[in-house]
Amino acid sequence: MRVLGFDPGTATTGYGVVEGKGNKLTHIAHGVITTPPEDHFAVRLQSIYDEVVDLIKIHAPQAVAIEELFFTKNVTTGIAVAQARGVIALAAAQADLPIGEFSPREMKSAVAGYGKADKKQVQEMVKILLNLDAVPKPDDAADALGIAICQIHTGHFQAATGQ
Amino acid sequence: MRVLGFDPGTATTGYGVVEGKGNKLTHIAHGVITTPPEDHFAVRLQSIYDEVVDLIKIHAPQAVAIEELFFTKNVTTGIAVAQARGVIALAAAQADLPIGEFSPREMKSAVAGYGKADKKQVQEMVKILLNLDAVPKPDDAADALGIAICQIHTGHFQAATGQ
Repeated sequence: MRVLGFDPGTATTGYGVVEGKGNKLTHIAHGVITTPPEDHFAVRLQSIYDEVVDLIKIHAPQAVAIEELFFTKNVTTGIAVAQARGVIALAAAQADLPIGEFSPREMKSAVAGYGKADKKQVQEMVKILLNLDAVPKPDDAADALGIAICQIHTGHFQAATGQ
Repeated sequence: MRVLGFDPGTATTGYGVVEGKGNKLTHIAHGVITTPPEDHFAVRLQSIYDEVVDLIKIHAPQAVAIEELFFTKNVTTGIAVAQARGVIALAAAQADLPIGEFSPREMKSAVAGYGKADKKQVQEMVKILLNLDAVPKPDDAADALGIAICQIHTGHFQAATGQ
């Protein structure tokens, strides 16, 4: 199963593509979608949506995995991130892809075996699990790879389209 | 200027279309987009997006106006509403429409002349301003008409696409 994972944000949305066959995980791609702060929020959402549509076309995943949101500190940022998450989910639904949702805790638990693992531990495990030479950069892309691995490990997703 | 206003939500998104010429306001349409709670959140977002795209085609507005979000009580609901707001803004940006954002206070002030007006006062003023026989129903549609009126009255919107 090939999974396209996302760590959503307005300024920076991380993505990571991982292929899982049996016990073997293969790194396919990772990167970030960035949008300039001077653009109108709707134009930024359009850029994110367009790039997600392209990523789905290019990598042909069988599922999309996306980080769950929890607003605790900055509500204004939270609204912007939720809006970005909305257009990512829309692109996945339009492509008839099932969507897995995972909390940071679930992702850490699946990747590092420990729900309270710190950022560095998670990144090191992503590097080891995907047999990479270095920790994937930037952080948002590493997190997105972690979310994709989490989806493959748990095999758990809610069917977005009855699949 | 013809404005398509939205009061976003996951279960119910209100919309209202108002035409403004000089001092005259004309009611064009109002209603709600509803999505069933048993559907996956991404499918619900897709339904909202599809209906917004249709509303823009049918009513050919010159601008879209949308209520600003403030999370105070229910953060989980807030995330869902922000995701819906994201796909509405996306549809507007794809149609090259400018997007006005107004707080409930700004809307109340523009419609009822008083930022702390209650729901009934606002609905009564929407009815009077649009020369309707009855208060528009349901509440979300009345609010969306209020948002559209607010856009026309203030003439204030941020250009989403440089227009």
